[in-house]
Amino acid sequence: MKMTITDIARLIDGDVVGDGQVEITGCAGLKEAKEGDLSFLANARYEPLAKESKASVIIVPRQMSLPGKLVIRVEHPSFAFSQVINHLLKDNPPLINPGVHPTAIIAKDAILGKDVAIGPYVVVEPKAVVGDGTKIYAHAYIGHNVKVGINGLIYTHVTLRENVWVGNNVIIHSGTVVGSDGYGYVTVDGKHMKIPQIGTVVIEDDVEIGANVTIDRARFDKTVIGEGTKIDNLVHIAHNVIIGKHCLIVAQVGISGSTLIGNHVILAGQVGIVGHLTIGDGAVVAAQSGVSKSIKAGMQVFGSPAQPLRDAFKNNAHIQRLDHYVAMIQELKKKVEELENRDAKNN
Amino acid sequence: MKMTITDIARLIDGDVVGDGQVEITGCAGLKEAKEGDLSFLANARYEPLAKESKASVIIVPRQMSLPGKLVIRVEHPSFAFSQVINHLLKDNPPLINPGVHPTAIIAKDAILGKDVAIGPYVVVEPKAVVGDGTKIYAHAYIGHNVKVGINGLIYTHVTLRENVWVGNNVIIHSGTVVGSDGYGYVTVDGKHMKIPQIGTVVIEDDVEIGANVTIDRARFDKTVIGEGTKIDNLVHIAHNVIIGKHCLIVAQVGISGSTLIGNHVILAGQVGIVGHLTIGDGAVVAAQSGVSKSIKAGMQVFGSPAQPLRDAFKNNAHIQRLDHYVAMIQELKKKVEELENRDAKNN
Amino acid sequence: MKMTITDIARLIDGDVVGDGQVEITGCAGLKEAKEGDLSFLANARYEPLAKESKASVIIVPRQMSLPGKLVIRVEHPSFAFSQVINHLLKDNPPLINPGVHPTAIIAKDAILGKDVAIGPYVVVEPKAVVGDGTKIYAHAYIGHNVKVGINGLIYTHVTLRENVWVGNNVIIHSGTVVGSDGYGYVTVDGKHMKIPQIGTVVIEDDVEIGANVTIDRARFDKTVIGEGTKIDNLVHIAHNVIIGKHCLIVAQVGISGSTLIGNHVILAGQVGIVGHLTIGDGAVVAAQSGVSKSIKAGMQVFGSPAQPLRDAFKNNAHIQRLDHYVAMIQELKKKVEELENRDAKNN
Repeated sequence: MKMTITDIARLIDGDVVGDGQVEITGCAGLKEAKEGDLSFLANARYEPLAKESKASVIIVPRQMSLPGKLVIRVEHPSFAFSQVINHLLKDNPPLINPGVHPTAIIAKDAILGKDVAIGPYVVVEPKAVVGDGTKIYAHAYIGHNVKVGINGLIYTHVTLRENVWVGNNVIIHSGTVVGSDGYGYVTVDGKHMKIPQIGTVVIEDDVEIGANVTIDRARFDKTVIGEGTKIDNLVHIAHNVIIGKHCLIVAQVGISGSTLIGNHVILAGQVGIVGHLTIGDGAVVAAQSGVSKSIKAGMQVFGSPAQPLRDAFKNNAHIQRLDHYVAMIQELKKKVEELENRDAKNN
Repeated sequence: MKMTITDIARLIDGDVVGDGQVEITGCAGLKEAKEGDLSFLANARYEPLAKESKASVIIVPRQMSLPGKLVIRVEHPSFAFSQVINHLLKDNPPLINPGVHPTAIIAKDAILGKDVAIGPYVVVEPKAVVGDGTKIYAHAYIGHNVKVGINGLIYTHVTLRENVWVGNNVIIHSGTVVGSDGYGYVTVDGKHMKIPQIGTVVIEDDVEIGANVTIDRARFDKTVIGEGTKIDNLVHIAHNVIIGKHCLIVAQVGISGSTLIGNHVILAGQVGIVGHLTIGDGAVVAAQSGVSKSIKAGMQVFGSPAQPLRDAFKNNAHIQRLDHYVAMIQELKKKVEELENRDAKNN
Repeated sequence: MKMTITDIARLIDGDVVGDGQVEITGCAGLKEAKEGDLSFLANARYEPLAKESKASVIIVPRQMSLPGKLVIRVEHPSFAFSQVINHLLKDNPPLINPGVHPTAIIAKDAILGKDVAIGPYVVVEPKAVVGDGTKIYAHAYIGHNVKVGINGLIYTHVTLRENVWVGNNVIIHSGTVVGSDGYGYVTVDGKHMKIPQIGTVVIEDDVEIGANVTIDRARFDKTVIGEGTKIDNLVHIAHNVIIGKHCLIVAQVGISGSTLIGNHVILAGQVGIVGHLTIGDGAVVAAQSGVSKSIKAGMQVFGSPAQPLRDAFKNNAHIQRLDHYVAMIQELKKKVEELENRDAKNN
């Protein structure tokens, strides 16, 4: 890979400060960068790191100067840097060969789009459809009547069970299971009888799902992951959950059945949400919180059980001082008894 | 699929109110149902939904009337509805072909029962036994000397490691690992030396296990999942845990080594249980609780650390008012000081 | 298997008390042992169990006597017992045949060491290297340019994605994913744009990783699991986390991006750690704790948010008595009002 700074600036709509003819030979973070590397600075807080960096060129925010350094000024340095990396990665040899590996088992009435890449030991069941340009890694399982859109990336050991619908530009990491049965039983005479789960799962466009995630199919109808939502590793999504667009669902979150999550919601790591709730647009749930009541749009909550963020901070601070407060109460008790005793003596 | 209401009523031991000759063409929830569909109403709370539903026939509790609607009255509407669905699903083409897929690798001395269905790229190791009617989906791994009972359902990418014993009518969802080594080490001079895990896992009849669950083999002897117990996704069961019959273990629960769980216990989502405890029959542990002491039969607990449910509710309510209480303490302190000052002046 | 007690004592550097010519025919825990078995006693607390045990020989600590029992005295009974088991297991038929299974797909320019065992349907991609004596079970995936050291054990359905580096004597249990993309996005106009994750993962020597674990590759540079560290099932390690040597990371722990964990750290089950923190050497985090601030070497913390262990115990005790304290406050309030009223009357 060889690009001049001017080439890069053109790619990311940036302004060069310095010699535009310098060529870069690699990309790295500020700390790891060596001579010849391109790096970036997204946050003024890391300016000292940028000054010490060995990077030859640094992408910086529009208004920033770094005296003595070659810089390219842009609106969003981190995003611009990603664009450069993606541009350079295009030249890398692909990790999966175009076409269908001879050991992949493709049902006769499955439909494969143009330019798909299907790895060894992949199974594509009858009536499944795989869109143009989608790549499916080794050992993945594409069930009966599953639809996967275009430009998808399905990693190793993924299971998409029957009838699951996956949109365009979706990335699903290794070991993830989409469409397992919802956890539903009727208890009759102390025995739990299985409730058939005959719905499905819909994953909209531009979703990314981490590794070893589980997303259950609906009892009827569908479990939905909305457009642009990003799900981290080991997350559990129960049956009939509807997640809106552009949410961030961080690692090890669990969402119970039939809960509705709005758009642009953030659920931090290890959060648990009870079933049949509504989480409003733009709500933020802090890490490890347990949500047992619906949350209004824009609210920020924390704790198990969850409270508004400010209350939770205040009450947590109090909890850490409980020992002090208990001592105060005990001293007050003593003093009040003394006052009462004196009072009794005086009267 | 076509069935008259009378056929359905016979199947589920129900009483028809209305024209028994009407035919249904599908099954759905009250909300999603369209004309021709069968639906059900389990809870009087949803009666308004039933009245608005487009379903042609609704299964209802014995005593209920829905004026203007065709109904079938039964003891357990939700269970009855499941029975109808299961009856209709029988006519669906199977998702896995009967017989053994030519790419499945079956050891010479493995034993397969009658009417098994074994999918592509399944591996069945020496001395393994698969019972009559059991279905094993693509890429599953059945280890050495594993026994799987009759009518089982083993989904894609499941691993049953050597010597694991699985009863009849057991369902294991995709990606689940049964029989991984227990987490056991002896620390010698600051280094953790592995303790061999030479026990196994026993899964009794009628158990269902969700996706991406992990159940570790015992150090000696066996880890046990009791008859009829239902385990949700991403649950962790450590070595030598013994779980009783008909328990519900909800998603992302973790149970540490050698803990004994009684019968009919409910562990809600994300609960964690310390090792070497005993959880009595019928105990209920609320979501996200952390259990560090044994629990008596029938007790309900909540919190981390867990307390009896009522105490936990009371104390949680107090926690959410701590700010108020602290203000009260501070005001009392001021008043007591004033009283003391006046008292000093007066004497 | 047949060994005399004298043979065993020689193997584990122990002293026989009793007849050294007795032969053992099996190994088991004190409870499960039958005549002919070897067992062990690590903790004086279990002495009554040892006295009732049917084991023919018991490995005990150096200073201990068990009148009427054949014993072998050693420094570390549990470790010594493991050594005997490992010695005996050597004679067991292997669970995976030596050599390369004909269905394994080994890239032409991959390099396999001596005495490897590679199971059915394993995929080893171009430029991967597998060290001498390493065993790779069915359906595992070894990505492009992955290095696995000597004497490794890679179980079924494991994914090692491209460029991951694994040291010697490493055990990785079934379903675990190493090298999935880190969870990194830049949000531009409300849309989360993927940040390329071009770093890798390094797993040092003597590490063991449980089942269905996820370890993300670094954005740049590398995520590291230090030498001798043992990771339990369903753990999540985010991108750029650096874990030191000889740590214990118990089941369902989640560690957020770029956090540094020292050496000999213990994170108990279901702990969550925020990103960009430093956890000092020898720190211990109790189960279910949520760590949002860095922790100094040797500290023990508990709670969500985590506090020093002693404070957490004290404050938890207070929380469980909040009802009592609130009653005290309310009584004090009443008494102070009475005192004020009397005071007002008197003046």
